[in-house]
Amino acid sequence: MTRVNENYAKLPGSYLFSGIAKKVAAFQAAHPETEIIRLGIGDVTQPLAPAILKAMHQAVDEMGHAETFRGYAPEQGYLFLRDVIAREDFQKRGCDISADEIFISDGAKCDAGNIQELFSLDSVAAVCDPVYPVYLDSNVMAGRTGQYHEDTGKFDGVVYLPCTEANGFLPELPKEPADLIYLCFPNNPTGEAIKKEDLQIWVDYANQNGSVLLFDAAYEAYITEDGIPHSIYECEGAKTCAIELRSFSKKAGFTGTRLGFTVVPKELIRGNASLNAMWARRQGSKYNGAPYIIQRAGEAVYSPEGSRQVEEQIGRYLFNAKTIREGLAAAGYTVYGGVNSPYIWMKTPGNMKSWEFFDHLLENAGIVGTPGAGFGPSGEGFFRLTAFGTYENSLKALERIKKL
Amino acid sequence: MTRVNENYAKLPGSYLFSGIAKKVAAFQAAHPETEIIRLGIGDVTQPLAPAILKAMHQAVDEMGHAETFRGYAPEQGYLFLRDVIAREDFQKRGCDISADEIFISDGAKCDAGNIQELFSLDSVAAVCDPVYPVYLDSNVMAGRTGQYHEDTGKFDGVVYLPCTEANGFLPELPKEPADLIYLCFPNNPTGEAIKKEDLQIWVDYANQNGSVLLFDAAYEAYITEDGIPHSIYECEGAKTCAIELRSFSKKAGFTGTRLGFTVVPKELIRGNASLNAMWARRQGSKYNGAPYIIQRAGEAVYSPEGSRQVEEQIGRYLFNAKTIREGLAAAGYTVYGGVNSPYIWMKTPGNMKSWEFFDHLLENAGIVGTPGAGFGPSGEGFFRLTAFGTYENSLKALERIKKL
Repeated sequence: MTRVNENYAKLPGSYLFSGIAKKVAAFQAAHPETEIIRLGIGDVTQPLAPAILKAMHQAVDEMGHAETFRGYAPEQGYLFLRDVIAREDFQKRGCDISADEIFISDGAKCDAGNIQELFSLDSVAAVCDPVYPVYLDSNVMAGRTGQYHEDTGKFDGVVYLPCTEANGFLPELPKEPADLIYLCFPNNPTGEAIKKEDLQIWVDYANQNGSVLLFDAAYEAYITEDGIPHSIYECEGAKTCAIELRSFSKKAGFTGTRLGFTVVPKELIRGNASLNAMWARRQGSKYNGAPYIIQRAGEAVYSPEGSRQVEEQIGRYLFNAKTIREGLAAAGYTVYGGVNSPYIWMKTPGNMKSWEFFDHLLENAGIVGTPGAGFGPSGEGFFRLTAFGTYENSLKALERIKKL
Repeated sequence: MTRVNENYAKLPGSYLFSGIAKKVAAFQAAHPETEIIRLGIGDVTQPLAPAILKAMHQAVDEMGHAETFRGYAPEQGYLFLRDVIAREDFQKRGCDISADEIFISDGAKCDAGNIQELFSLDSVAAVCDPVYPVYLDSNVMAGRTGQYHEDTGKFDGVVYLPCTEANGFLPELPKEPADLIYLCFPNNPTGEAIKKEDLQIWVDYANQNGSVLLFDAAYEAYITEDGIPHSIYECEGAKTCAIELRSFSKKAGFTGTRLGFTVVPKELIRGNASLNAMWARRQGSKYNGAPYIIQRAGEAVYSPEGSRQVEEQIGRYLFNAKTIREGLAAAGYTVYGGVNSPYIWMKTPGNMKSWEFFDHLLENAGIVGTPGAGFGPSGEGFFRLTAFGTYENSLKALERIKKL
């Protein structure tokens, strides 16, 4: 009898956002009259920018003529896209990253989930707590962890790096050995950013210990302050210890369009193995590239009009963030994030548990947020709101919360 | 020091088609005057059908307005697509498959590579020999095999099912225990199909032994003869033992558009685990759905105009296949496949080794095919040609081969 991968049984419940979606659907079915405001999952609401639409229409037309039709894409992605990314996202910021270190994909979630395949099963993963669930769940599924304990909310065999009010939501260097260290800055879910000198400490640590940093920069487009690195390769020595994950989802509203990329520097070697070559092999054998049409859409994000339009969209979301953050603060709530990030990390009132506050907010204000505990035990007592709604809904949500 | 996944080092050379692409590029650089005809990788050449283009333009427009914009897709895929697939591909053929057993993805290659994650690491994989490399490589990467032996062209710990002239390219039931049995019919690379009664033998075997069949039906749209199953669920009892992989690549020219799906029946249980629930969890945690625009394109494939247009395209490729197959046979070559498949599996002349014939054909006729040995040791002495070129190129290739 074929046996299944028993590691799946270690996972408690369903994927966080699937579980929330079901809860909300049940509430809506029971209360069809309630106009629910969704500030839970980090999904965008503004339509794609005109320059992106134009590029896609053009690419669709190309697919309709034999002379311009495109079949299988180059495995790492089209050079037109990798070149512009290398130039605009890295070289212009002084990072020495070239097109052959960039791997186009259909989104950072897939890459964040798949990247652990490159490492031995006895590698120890270190994750921030609270954390975007994909890093942890993918390591659980692969068998890199022990059992889950409901009382602590933790898996055995994982190094948790608490990010709390006390440490300003910046993880401290692990005390135990850690091989795969997942860092996400600006952070999901706390919305807090890391300064370049603080990130440099992690790069130095990884180089000294031979660890690999998996740096998720999905929210870099929301950085507004100076001194906050947009890429880990702004830190000295990062090319020998860090892989960077990027996404078009929040940068250009691609949550339903699907595009991302991963940077694996050629200098990143462990044992005798080039991680760049291993990722190329992994993607070549188990992936078949993002659609041509979508890669052209990605290219348009970097065009003069595209980048102007996309910046304007981000500006609107950041204004929502400011509105929510300042409004909640003025109403007496303790809030973090929302300055270099679309996420506001609010402290639940009256020491309420975060799932309790989720129910409270849904039932009494018709607002969906994400309970901090869903991101890990140190998220308890916190609640994530996103700035990805419309301005009207952001304001309306604020008013409803104030009236609670 | 972080250790890498050492299973990658077991893989000989690069992914088959990446290796061929490099060889061809080197030849073209050395012989810029040669007009190369590519009948190697199974990549289509006809543009997308008008009904599909129309649906994509419309979906792009929808993405440009806040009221019709789409963010994150439902995890299993949009119901509009899963519903039409369930009806057209399964229920109309008498297969009791419902929308909640269908998981939309960006292609069968990804699903074929990822599906093994659901099973224990000590599961034994059985593959046809010759075989589409993804099934085998993904199991090697996961550590489900032993070392590779260059002399035999085989990995330890894998059950190989030879498909040879002697058995009519139909695998025989394994003599050793096999947990994950990969079957692809109509077959890639041999181009041969399986009759319903022969496939039923595998379904019965799997149900008796508790094995799981991973049935790749990527080429079902090319079936022309009666009695050949389009889906494994046409066989009695398949829902308790089989997962089916489907692709839009060859059915509708989506190699560069990327869409596929996997069917995991709810009755498929191993141990206490529902494989449907496990795949839902895997996709929910490590995948984020195919782009909305592409899912609308997929829906259009099933519209009255779309299906008529797509059938016409397939008819053209099948006519190429017939032309190549009959032309080679008339010229004295031994050929298989090409009747229910876009692939022609030709015997190399004069007992030439298949890589030798690859070089011979490239250097003397400017034709790229795929050496049978690249698909496994039993592929030695054979060569795969695809019918996905234009009719003109198919004819031209035939003439060049005849002149060799």
